[in-house]
Amino acid sequence: MNIGDIYQEEIQITANLITKFADFSGDFNPVHFDDNAAIAQGFKGRIAHGMVSASFFSKIFANKFPGAGTIYLNQTFKFHAPVYVDEVLTYRLEVIAAKEGKPIYTVKTEAFGPDKLLKISGEAVIRSKV
Amino acid sequence: MNIGDIYQEEIQITANLITKFADFSGDFNPVHFDDNAAIAQGFKGRIAHGMVSASFFSKIFANKFPGAGTIYLNQTFKFHAPVYVDEVLTYRLEVIAAKEGKPIYTVKTEAFGPDKLLKISGEAVIRSKV
Repeated sequence: MNIGDIYQEEIQITANLITKFADFSGDFNPVHFDDNAAIAQGFKGRIAHGMVSASFFSKIFANKFPGAGTIYLNQTFKFHAPVYVDEVLTYRLEVIAAKEGKPIYTVKTEAFGPDKLLKISGEAVIRSKV
Repeated sequence: MNIGDIYQEEIQITANLITKFADFSGDFNPVHFDDNAAIAQGFKGRIAHGMVSASFFSKIFANKFPGAGTIYLNQTFKFHAPVYVDEVLTYRLEVIAAKEGKPIYTVKTEAFGPDKLLKISGEAVIRSKV
């Protein structure tokens, strides 16, 4: 990885992903399952858990950018806007710093929704296997 | 919620949770499934995804502290030490700030392993339903 390297991937946040995350984590917050509960809180309908959308940065680090063996050291998330069922998010990762002599990188982590609306921003620090 | 309020809960990070998270996210990094791959990278055996342990803060916010309807605004995670299969983590959450006139709270989020070793630290900003 080098400073300036960019990776992008589109992932659809389906109802099935929301259910799987809830089953894994035990987070069955009604705003994620019940349109009326979500509407009562000012949303247009039920929304994905923040951690559903956020977890795909972990997948991208492990599978693609930079790949297997990547270890998470830090991650920050700012949730700017709700993610609705079946929205397609564009994940954009950019290497913004590298540690001298160690395979440790700071990566800007963003996810954009329809109309390029910023949904999640943040930064990761990862240690690459190589 | 009031400044100084503390919530604690113990959760065991089982192999089943690791498998469920991988199935949900698509993150099948070998360090989470293959002891030899993890040992080759300096660990004692396979380790949980950082996001496995981290996701339980989301569950606690939604289910207990403060409860249903909680919305994530921000979350930071620093992963201090690896979490091994079947370790019991003690999640400790403490309200450290509250926004004047709005149900928005900053919560210190920590998870400790055996021997009170700090595994994850960070801060969340949440909006409570009430």
